[in-house]
Amino acid sequence: MTSRRRLLAGGAAAGLGVAAGAAVVAATGRDDTPVTVAAAATVDTGTATVDFHGPRQAGVAEDPPAHAAFVAFTLAGGVDRRALARMMRLLTDDARRLTAGAPALGDTDATLAVLPARLTVTFGFGPGLYRAAGQKSPVTDLPTFTIDRLERRWSGGDLLLQICADDPLTVAHTQRMLIKDARPFGAVRWVQQGFRRSPGVQAPEHTQRNVMGQLDGTANPRGPEIDPAVWNADGSTQLVVRRVRAEIEKWDILAVSDKENAVGRRLESGAPLSGTQEHDEPDFAQLDDSGLPAMPDFSHVTRARVTDPTLKILRRPYNYDGAPNAAGQPDAGLIFAAYQRDIARQFVPIQQRLAEKDLLNEWITPIGSAVFAVPPGCADDGWIGEQVLA
Amino acid sequence: MTSRRRLLAGGAAAGLGVAAGAAVVAATGRDDTPVTVAAAATVDTGTATVDFHGPRQAGVAEDPPAHAAFVAFTLAGGVDRRALARMMRLLTDDARRLTAGAPALGDTDATLAVLPARLTVTFGFGPGLYRAAGQKSPVTDLPTFTIDRLERRWSGGDLLLQICADDPLTVAHTQRMLIKDARPFGAVRWVQQGFRRSPGVQAPEHTQRNVMGQLDGTANPRGPEIDPAVWNADGSTQLVVRRVRAEIEKWDILAVSDKENAVGRRLESGAPLSGTQEHDEPDFAQLDDSGLPAMPDFSHVTRARVTDPTLKILRRPYNYDGAPNAAGQPDAGLIFAAYQRDIARQFVPIQQRLAEKDLLNEWITPIGSAVFAVPPGCADDGWIGEQVLA
Repeated sequence: MTSRRRLLAGGAAAGLGVAAGAAVVAATGRDDTPVTVAAAATVDTGTATVDFHGPRQAGVAEDPPAHAAFVAFTLAGGVDRRALARMMRLLTDDARRLTAGAPALGDTDATLAVLPARLTVTFGFGPGLYRAAGQKSPVTDLPTFTIDRLERRWSGGDLLLQICADDPLTVAHTQRMLIKDARPFGAVRWVQQGFRRSPGVQAPEHTQRNVMGQLDGTANPRGPEIDPAVWNADGSTQLVVRRVRAEIEKWDILAVSDKENAVGRRLESGAPLSGTQEHDEPDFAQLDDSGLPAMPDFSHVTRARVTDPTLKILRRPYNYDGAPNAAGQPDAGLIFAAYQRDIARQFVPIQQRLAEKDLLNEWITPIGSAVFAVPPGCADDGWIGEQVLA
Repeated sequence: MTSRRRLLAGGAAAGLGVAAGAAVVAATGRDDTPVTVAAAATVDTGTATVDFHGPRQAGVAEDPPAHAAFVAFTLAGGVDRRALARMMRLLTDDARRLTAGAPALGDTDATLAVLPARLTVTFGFGPGLYRAAGQKSPVTDLPTFTIDRLERRWSGGDLLLQICADDPLTVAHTQRMLIKDARPFGAVRWVQQGFRRSPGVQAPEHTQRNVMGQLDGTANPRGPEIDPAVWNADGSTQLVVRRVRAEIEKWDILAVSDKENAVGRRLESGAPLSGTQEHDEPDFAQLDDSGLPAMPDFSHVTRARVTDPTLKILRRPYNYDGAPNAAGQPDAGLIFAAYQRDIARQFVPIQQRLAEKDLLNEWITPIGSAVFAVPPGCADDGWIGEQVLA
């Protein structure tokens, strides 16, 4: 893992334009060890790589790159365990080459493969893939939540590719190469493209804002909390992907104080209403001047809180912004992606509490939903899914 | 202009991770004077600004930021010269604030305004705006080209906003604020979102690749060629925006040598087939070993060549990559944006030659087209369009 961590930190540092030779501390989110690196002039945002190989897949615990495409497939009829094994050998080989900045074996545009920009390709298996393989799925479809307004075009999927990189052309090329090799085995079910801040716009340790202006991800597990919350002993994890539309026009007419009551945090600083700094622990017992809880009962933070750190989820969201309609109303929101050991024990209870009563529900609408088991990583001579499909 | 140039260069340098205090030469594309700056640690990719004010609008000759939204409006019936003047005062005020990293007056998400990331907002006026204002338009709709397969949803427009920044969230927020202030005067006709390489992925002087893997923009006017080709004496210019779909699946089955014959350049280096380096001048008289022209008669470069430098066009293209269809076929191509003094004298003859015979036509399809006059810039107390609408 050292090499993955080193390059990540170096890439991040380069993107920030720090002085060459200066010591830089970058938290990778993989564990609690701050990593001190000397930013080398030769490691830049374009050539930085993230190791593909390892006991766990990349693309989960690293600082998320700026751009992502989530690509879901519906398997074709008759694709069985042996066909799936062929598919995953092929896709693993593509991913290991492309993430290293080399063309895929069948690459039709090799010139676009040379700048990986921290490219990661993460594979998720939906319940349907396990069915096709004659295996028991570790994940099951989510229960119906009252707030959901799910559209089929953003929901479900047998196979997921999560493609992330600090460069959008790299994401586009990788998406194209992987789809070419996956499509003999199934149809593209949906593609969701999202973004975070560009490299160098913010320091990597800063929490990012979403399209509603909120700092998004403050309560993520950090450092030593990550392993027990996210990774199973075998190196697997589980992923929920939800498309959450922001009802921005309604949100815009709220006063800042009303927005802050709905969220439970100050908009600008991200501090809980009971505190002053973004990372202050919310104090749900604190009363305000009028004797009411400083953290409103129905605020998003109050409803989403998790006291047992092993039940936290690791949110890795991306913003989306489609074309507005003729009236100028935006089509924007969040590709909510969250990793955890066990969706049923972690995501589902949080979402149930939020669906019951969360003031924020009035301004956000889940329109897509999918769950995936994320199998362990693989060695240089292995392939993703070998434990399930070999 | 000094300030605009300085910040541009500083922003670019910061994005590349160069040593603080080192001397950096960055070509801005505005003139032939290389600009030497000391990259200041405080100027980073997020806070870098491009001056909004000046005799010419920003967003034309600077090195293009990584992300762009082109937003076209159809004016509402009854919007006359006086209404247009009100609209442009309002939009100019928004643009001058947002490009400086300050919220718009009616900003509903002020927290999203603080990282301009070289934000530019460039206004273009279509023929319909001049009609509504009772004025003669400097631009007229393009003639029909045989290769066109234009769709209304990507074509035309009375008002254009070209919004560019090195950060996609900044583009999204700016687009939203400007649309909110423009929509009382018209409907959103189309929005095209595009990307180039992320900040720091390539040095700014490198020509970028498009989704077909070609280096795109090699023949642009450079340095002292820009002024006579692009800017009229009053500070105005003219813009063609075309959406050009790449027929990637057909392109992919070509051999590299066939691709190179269609373009007239080596794919990897961008060198003309008569030369060895990207910026070698193509030699149309050179014969190859078999006695045929080294630059094929029907190649894109041969057909597009312009001998009089004042007739060159300044291409400022962005890639687009939409969602593929269920069969996995990509929806990708180029938002071709090109600036020049006079569309009729510069773009039209080039496009006519290309439409007649250009091998590349088989792999690209124009599906959208629009023309805009780009009025001069304005002073601190002025507004864009004051020469036309005041």
